[in-house]
Amino acid sequence: MAHRVLHFFADFFVYETAKSVVVKSWSVGIINRVVQLLIILYFIGWVFMHEKGHQSRDTGIESAVMTKVKGLGKFNNRVNDVADYVVPSQGGSSFSIITSMVITANQTQGRCPETDHKFKCTTDDDCMAKLDSNLGNGIITGTCLNDTSGTTGWCEIQGWCPAEDDNVTENSMKEVENFTIFIKNSIRFPKFNVTRGNFPSSLNQSYIQSCRYDPVDHPFCPVFKVGDILRHINQSLDSITDKGGEIGININWKCNLDYNVTYCNPNYFFTRLDAAFKNSVASKGYNFRFAKYYQSEDGTECRTLHKAKAIRFEIIVSGNAGKFNTVPFLINLVTALTSVGLATVFCDIILLNFHKGADEYKAKKFEEVSGVVSKSANNRLYEGSQMAIKALEKSSNDSGTFSIGRQESHSPPNQ
Amino acid sequence: MAHRVLHFFADFFVYETAKSVVVKSWSVGIINRVVQLLIILYFIGWVFMHEKGHQSRDTGIESAVMTKVKGLGKFNNRVNDVADYVVPSQGGSSFSIITSMVITANQTQGRCPETDHKFKCTTDDDCMAKLDSNLGNGIITGTCLNDTSGTTGWCEIQGWCPAEDDNVTENSMKEVENFTIFIKNSIRFPKFNVTRGNFPSSLNQSYIQSCRYDPVDHPFCPVFKVGDILRHINQSLDSITDKGGEIGININWKCNLDYNVTYCNPNYFFTRLDAAFKNSVASKGYNFRFAKYYQSEDGTECRTLHKAKAIRFEIIVSGNAGKFNTVPFLINLVTALTSVGLATVFCDIILLNFHKGADEYKAKKFEEVSGVVSKSANNRLYEGSQMAIKALEKSSNDSGTFSIGRQESHSPPNQ
Amino acid sequence: MAHRVLHFFADFFVYETAKSVVVKSWSVGIINRVVQLLIILYFIGWVFMHEKGHQSRDTGIESAVMTKVKGLGKFNNRVNDVADYVVPSQGGSSFSIITSMVITANQTQGRCPETDHKFKCTTDDDCMAKLDSNLGNGIITGTCLNDTSGTTGWCEIQGWCPAEDDNVTENSMKEVENFTIFIKNSIRFPKFNVTRGNFPSSLNQSYIQSCRYDPVDHPFCPVFKVGDILRHINQSLDSITDKGGEIGININWKCNLDYNVTYCNPNYFFTRLDAAFKNSVASKGYNFRFAKYYQSEDGTECRTLHKAKAIRFEIIVSGNAGKFNTVPFLINLVTALTSVGLATVFCDIILLNFHKGADEYKAKKFEEVSGVVSKSANNRLYEGSQMAIKALEKSSNDSGTFSIGRQESHSPPNQ
Repeated sequence: MAHRVLHFFADFFVYETAKSVVVKSWSVGIINRVVQLLIILYFIGWVFMHEKGHQSRDTGIESAVMTKVKGLGKFNNRVNDVADYVVPSQGGSSFSIITSMVITANQTQGRCPETDHKFKCTTDDDCMAKLDSNLGNGIITGTCLNDTSGTTGWCEIQGWCPAEDDNVTENSMKEVENFTIFIKNSIRFPKFNVTRGNFPSSLNQSYIQSCRYDPVDHPFCPVFKVGDILRHINQSLDSITDKGGEIGININWKCNLDYNVTYCNPNYFFTRLDAAFKNSVASKGYNFRFAKYYQSEDGTECRTLHKAKAIRFEIIVSGNAGKFNTVPFLINLVTALTSVGLATVFCDIILLNFHKGADEYKAKKFEEVSGVVSKSANNRLYEGSQMAIKALEKSSNDSGTFSIGRQESHSPPNQ
Repeated sequence: MAHRVLHFFADFFVYETAKSVVVKSWSVGIINRVVQLLIILYFIGWVFMHEKGHQSRDTGIESAVMTKVKGLGKFNNRVNDVADYVVPSQGGSSFSIITSMVITANQTQGRCPETDHKFKCTTDDDCMAKLDSNLGNGIITGTCLNDTSGTTGWCEIQGWCPAEDDNVTENSMKEVENFTIFIKNSIRFPKFNVTRGNFPSSLNQSYIQSCRYDPVDHPFCPVFKVGDILRHINQSLDSITDKGGEIGININWKCNLDYNVTYCNPNYFFTRLDAAFKNSVASKGYNFRFAKYYQSEDGTECRTLHKAKAIRFEIIVSGNAGKFNTVPFLINLVTALTSVGLATVFCDIILLNFHKGADEYKAKKFEEVSGVVSKSANNRLYEGSQMAIKALEKSSNDSGTFSIGRQESHSPPNQ
Repeated sequence: MAHRVLHFFADFFVYETAKSVVVKSWSVGIINRVVQLLIILYFIGWVFMHEKGHQSRDTGIESAVMTKVKGLGKFNNRVNDVADYVVPSQGGSSFSIITSMVITANQTQGRCPETDHKFKCTTDDDCMAKLDSNLGNGIITGTCLNDTSGTTGWCEIQGWCPAEDDNVTENSMKEVENFTIFIKNSIRFPKFNVTRGNFPSSLNQSYIQSCRYDPVDHPFCPVFKVGDILRHINQSLDSITDKGGEIGININWKCNLDYNVTYCNPNYFFTRLDAAFKNSVASKGYNFRFAKYYQSEDGTECRTLHKAKAIRFEIIVSGNAGKFNTVPFLINLVTALTSVGLATVFCDIILLNFHKGADEYKAKKFEEVSGVVSKSANNRLYEGSQMAIKALEKSSNDSGTFSIGRQESHSPPNQ
């Protein structure tokens, strides 16, 4: 029993390491070191410097955005302020600035003719065919209401009357170019518990009120002029106010928290979000309908319908942060060190196939154990095949360590 | 000094490679190649083809969604259009279609009895006990207002009066089944600067106006019929219009940018978002309250309170894109090649433990260095333990290369 | 031809394994096993237990949030309920509770004096200088309207009149402390098709109506008292109701789906989202403006402007789930096993440089192939350099296996 335990321990603590062949050759030695150097450079340059392989990374950025638009513009025969043209009014990360409206006032429930050219008719049958249409301003009753001229008419609808006629051309609010958007973006990297704002606390009130963001001159200014944004995305004011459109304001945080946290600042990018549809004939621009409800004097409910063309802004916050952490650092370091050993694979191919003393290297590197199977049929095959191989050897163009040269007969060292 | 430099260079450019033992055995050779083949197949099939290990991946999809609902429905004794039943009206990625409403008109500030059965009372004490309740329609004053019958009464509240009575049953808007939702989704993969829309620019206006999405027949049609969506998630119209509910429309982009970008198209999935609570007795459905404010003739503010049951739609955009990149390709290729070498570990276990000529292999593979410590106590232990081991050897069922066979005495080659 | 095929097969199925040197030394053996043990412990403890390396992970959590606020409060000389102070009313993941309002009633389009101190003037020139200002309540006309006293005046504006005077101090709604927020959060992990709600279906209606969330006593209660939330983030009620503020309610799902799915429950965290700006002099708090529109008796549109200070709540849902999967498990297991072999690198450094019998180990581990190049100039260099090296050897402090000891002259085994 004591022997058994002794045996186990003696055996367990035996140390085993690979036996190496040392080749004193300038050419292979230099190739080996050059390949190792390239591998080391790759790890230093790409894995550690570019990909920040020594850092633990937080991609779960948490963000809160508050926006405030300022500016005054005229449309609809009146001066409009923020409460009139910003929808929704709460100043979140997504909001629209209405640049023009088709207003249909004093609508009440009832029956009246359609206004859309799709619902022109001459007889009731024309309208009966459109009973289930979703495209009208109300439910099609199936009656064709003729003009006084009696030649063409419009289908009758039931719903809010009079129906909206959106062929009216309204002037759009060109003053939107001078409007400013103040963006307060607060982010947090939960993994590192780092909280940052998109502008430094040191900025004073008067700077924030007067500055306009500029990537070069005012990179920390949180106030964006709509005209500047349009210039960044190469859009003309007219193209976007006439049809409406969607603009993305990307706030990108890429933070290296190994440096001081004050270097953790955002970059701003601007994109036209509906760019994917710019060649599409359908569905240009951006508009939506809403209604304001009144109670008329006789108690019936009435409403004013608004079809608003607007510029929609979406604040899109993205980013990640990295900080030194021993675990990814060690993993990548170990990977780097073991990868350096891979140079051997490449050098072996050269050494065993293309080098002057290849045969002698083979004899050294490979040791055969064929005696074991010498009385079997296997071995006769091997012996036969070895002769064939010997004859073929010079013409072999196989390029791996696996397939060339091990058939060279040489006396194994300990026989 | 010159020697020193020479020494350094001569030493530095020495090339070192592992010495190998070559075993000519059909069985082990075939096992070795089969294991290598399995490893190669795994890398080709799983790592490269399934997991796209040769691609760099962009998971930070940026998305903008615009929606537009069309349809006309009756509830509340009137024909309602989009401006009436879609909240909020801006056509964003989250919106509700109101299917029924409990309307409490002409509320003004004052005192009046509660309507909820929780606030029934017979004496003032019943109401005093509920002074801090958050569940009433107004602040409980502590007075019990008796019915004319004098037997039961309701607690008095201060607030908007009359109080809402939501036991009124309203018919819900069944026409919602035929409503259509037009979805314009524009996405961008910032890493590859690829912008895509959820339908091709080539679709013309009339197709978009008339088509209805179908996974087989119209996979590119961006118009979704509410009834079709309900069918996809196995929900009846009645179940969702009576209580309200939340429906998710998932737009999933999985793009392989190694192919032409026109193959980068989304898939649509539909889910009932409140499915997790379907067995919960509490909090069924989806409803919310809002008010419209009027100014009465005498100047006092009054409001109409609406308790709306609605179907809420959330457009959830997800996805990622991959494109060939040399860095992940090389990393995975090198991992694959080194993994092929792991077949040796498996074959060694077989060769050294279960194979016919195992002893001879051991003698070949392992070379001992025990002479070094031959005069120490250590060695006496080793010698003793080796004898014990020899006796035990045949019954050893240890299965690793580490623990079997190295104690075989054989003369090391250079002695 | 037959020989050629035979040769190929015989060669292809040759098995090759590294030749090892076995060292019977207690010290190195123990060091080797200890290093291996540390590596194994690292993999078990960190990679598998902490980082869940055996699991496939779903980070694309899909979430839907429904909220409902309850509570009654007084401000603005009236009792306000949910329909009055929650904006927007739909109960989404982002909503504001208005705690005080500056109300400017009966505004109509016209001309009137400014109210802000920035627009004080004595002559028209003062106002002409501010013609393009975005900061006023209307478009500056350039006229200075003098007080009756004649000494100071205000610039005239065109727009909604009278202009808002936000120096009025309003009492804020302190009752907000007792308001409750009910949160219904439904999430889905699409990869595993697991759907979970933030509270169990077994909770009954009366518990949900009466409970208040507490991390210890009521971790599953989905009703949050605003006062409790403020306590969690160490904010006083006054500080947040006076200026407004933004509060984040983080719902974090970390699910190990190897256990029963009922253990997959969320954690709640609370943060003040505008914390990044707490030291900033500019832009404190949170407020927004909105208007309610009326039609006056003579048909002109008028509005009531509200400047609302509010607490904005953002429900931020994050999380991920893991489940056993053979692929990551095998990858990490193989990595672990091959990493165990790395102990050799460390032990070789000790054995070959710092151990008693280092020279003998070197002779065993390294086998030279220098005969090949013996007639070349290379070799003369090597021979020369070896003499130099021999002299220098004892003072060598190089510490790698690559650079020490291989120049020891010993007769290679097979010569």
